[in-house]
Amino acid sequence: MNLGLVFGGQSYEHEISIVSAITLKDVLKKEVKFIFCDKDRDFYLIDPKNMKATYFSSFEYKKSKKLILKNGGFFSEGAFSSKKIDVQVYVNLIHGCDGEDGKLASLFEFFDVKFIGTRLKPAILSYDKVLTKFLANITGVKTLNYQILKRNEEITIKPPFILKPATLGSSIGISIVKDESEITYALDKSFEFDDTLLVEPFFEGVRECNLAGYKADSKMEFSMIEEPNKDEFLDFDQKYLRFSDSKTIKEANLDEKLKEKLRKAFSKIYSYGFDGSLIRCDFFIIDDEIYLNEINTNPGSLAHYLFDNFEDRLYDLARNLPSYKKIEIDYNYVKSISVYK
Amino acid sequence: MNLGLVFGGQSYEHEISIVSAITLKDVLKKEVKFIFCDKDRDFYLIDPKNMKATYFSSFEYKKSKKLILKNGGFFSEGAFSSKKIDVQVYVNLIHGCDGEDGKLASLFEFFDVKFIGTRLKPAILSYDKVLTKFLANITGVKTLNYQILKRNEEITIKPPFILKPATLGSSIGISIVKDESEITYALDKSFEFDDTLLVEPFFEGVRECNLAGYKADSKMEFSMIEEPNKDEFLDFDQKYLRFSDSKTIKEANLDEKLKEKLRKAFSKIYSYGFDGSLIRCDFFIIDDEIYLNEINTNPGSLAHYLFDNFEDRLYDLARNLPSYKKIEIDYNYVKSISVYK
Repeated sequence: MNLGLVFGGQSYEHEISIVSAITLKDVLKKEVKFIFCDKDRDFYLIDPKNMKATYFSSFEYKKSKKLILKNGGFFSEGAFSSKKIDVQVYVNLIHGCDGEDGKLASLFEFFDVKFIGTRLKPAILSYDKVLTKFLANITGVKTLNYQILKRNEEITIKPPFILKPATLGSSIGISIVKDESEITYALDKSFEFDDTLLVEPFFEGVRECNLAGYKADSKMEFSMIEEPNKDEFLDFDQKYLRFSDSKTIKEANLDEKLKEKLRKAFSKIYSYGFDGSLIRCDFFIIDDEIYLNEINTNPGSLAHYLFDNFEDRLYDLARNLPSYKKIEIDYNYVKSISVYK
Repeated sequence: MNLGLVFGGQSYEHEISIVSAITLKDVLKKEVKFIFCDKDRDFYLIDPKNMKATYFSSFEYKKSKKLILKNGGFFSEGAFSSKKIDVQVYVNLIHGCDGEDGKLASLFEFFDVKFIGTRLKPAILSYDKVLTKFLANITGVKTLNYQILKRNEEITIKPPFILKPATLGSSIGISIVKDESEITYALDKSFEFDDTLLVEPFFEGVRECNLAGYKADSKMEFSMIEEPNKDEFLDFDQKYLRFSDSKTIKEANLDEKLKEKLRKAFSKIYSYGFDGSLIRCDFFIIDDEIYLNEINTNPGSLAHYLFDNFEDRLYDLARNLPSYKKIEIDYNYVKSISVYK
């Protein structure tokens, strides 16, 4: 089975995605294909030997073979022929816009392309921090108390609180407000990225735990539970630079009961249509109670550093993708209404 | 400006969409292009003179020019050239799956194609009856009390109630249960279409009102308010056959205060990112209070029969589509981390 990693995208995290793909190239021993989506959303087949950051930042990638997405997969176009790329399962490795906002999932679902990645609806809900609250609520997982804030609305939560753009991944545009005097600046900063913000109480030094997982053969498979090192919260650079160096990963020191609670909460979330994807859920732990913070439908480098035998697991997931019943169309309805004949 | 109507799709409402497109061909006086998405999701450019139901049911459409969706729009492919179809704005006229579940919106957003139709996120929320409750809630519009039901769960609402598959448009799979004895059969019937059902109390003879609208030049434009003729509720055939005959439309006899209430509720819903689309919201009226029933992001034939000067309004909307800021990618990040060079 050939896998094809799709990375890049019209996204604030375009460059992060390149780093993700380069990292996975070293992690995966079997050869995979690399499909780059550039900022103009043109697709290119990248030779593995060119998987270096400078190949993209110098725009040299434009010399690579251009691809077109059609029914069944990616095709290279020649003057006289169209050749299908020999990939059986694509892996969505685009972070943020295009990759995590449901667009790539839509493209793959529409063109009947097998892929590892979160499907359209759960992707949309996970990508929006307000909708994530709703997802957690209907699957029975707790989250922190919150307020939805539009421009010029009054904040009802007292400082310290945290402001988050509702629809951005990573930590872009997030501000912590510890004192009333910081509110105006923080609002300006966060509203630059989104028209809707989420306000949540901020707990200094709150314990965080990250857990990744996927489903194969109808069974949930989990990673180790990580307790991220943090300086209040992880900013953009901290969050992504670390996946080059898995030695910095710190396993959470939790009792088995709490670990089991985390896995149970993860499974509840995952049951909302996440089949076919490997995701990471980030939780808060407060007084032995767990609260979902966010769902990463495309964690950096697929959170490979949290798993043993990551490569085997990825192929295992690739063999366990959800399939869809095709809708039969018999034209009996239009045949029955003579007025349209 | 040339419009292009996109219809068909891998959808239970594929045939309805064909009828929608044929109906609009008669309604619109200016020439438009017709793009058919067949059940295998191949696209064809249909000559207006072939816009007859039998052209599709006989599969004659396969003789039409095949199109490919790429950056910027649809293209016809020849051996030596790729020619862009001369359309400035496409109109999403696919009902149900593909059209209303966010997939076509994703394709158009991804490939930077201008289109009339609901954008990805509001489409997803409107397509799922449970998420619609959430959308109404965060925009401040009331809905009926409800229960989310999975297989083998207990129904907590007493009959009479109505069962609806959570993610289907139209009235497919909907059952009314008036007596406990009818529950088992009704559940079997509705679970055939979806794994999640919505249970709502059923009010015999409840008053229903439908209102369509769109935004142009930052101003909401509304249709007349329709009170649908009904036999308890509209089934599949009733709902769609009527858009061939707009004389059967019955304007709701409401006082101005209630009409204004409906328009206000519609505007609140629409404010959740519906710019660029013409939608129809269906409401219940109970004791002078209004409740959102459902949002139709692609009403049959775009609910043209509810508007005066529909054609002018469609072009007006086409000139008022939302635009998106392109994300700049400067490669400063990958340039800064020497390890990936």
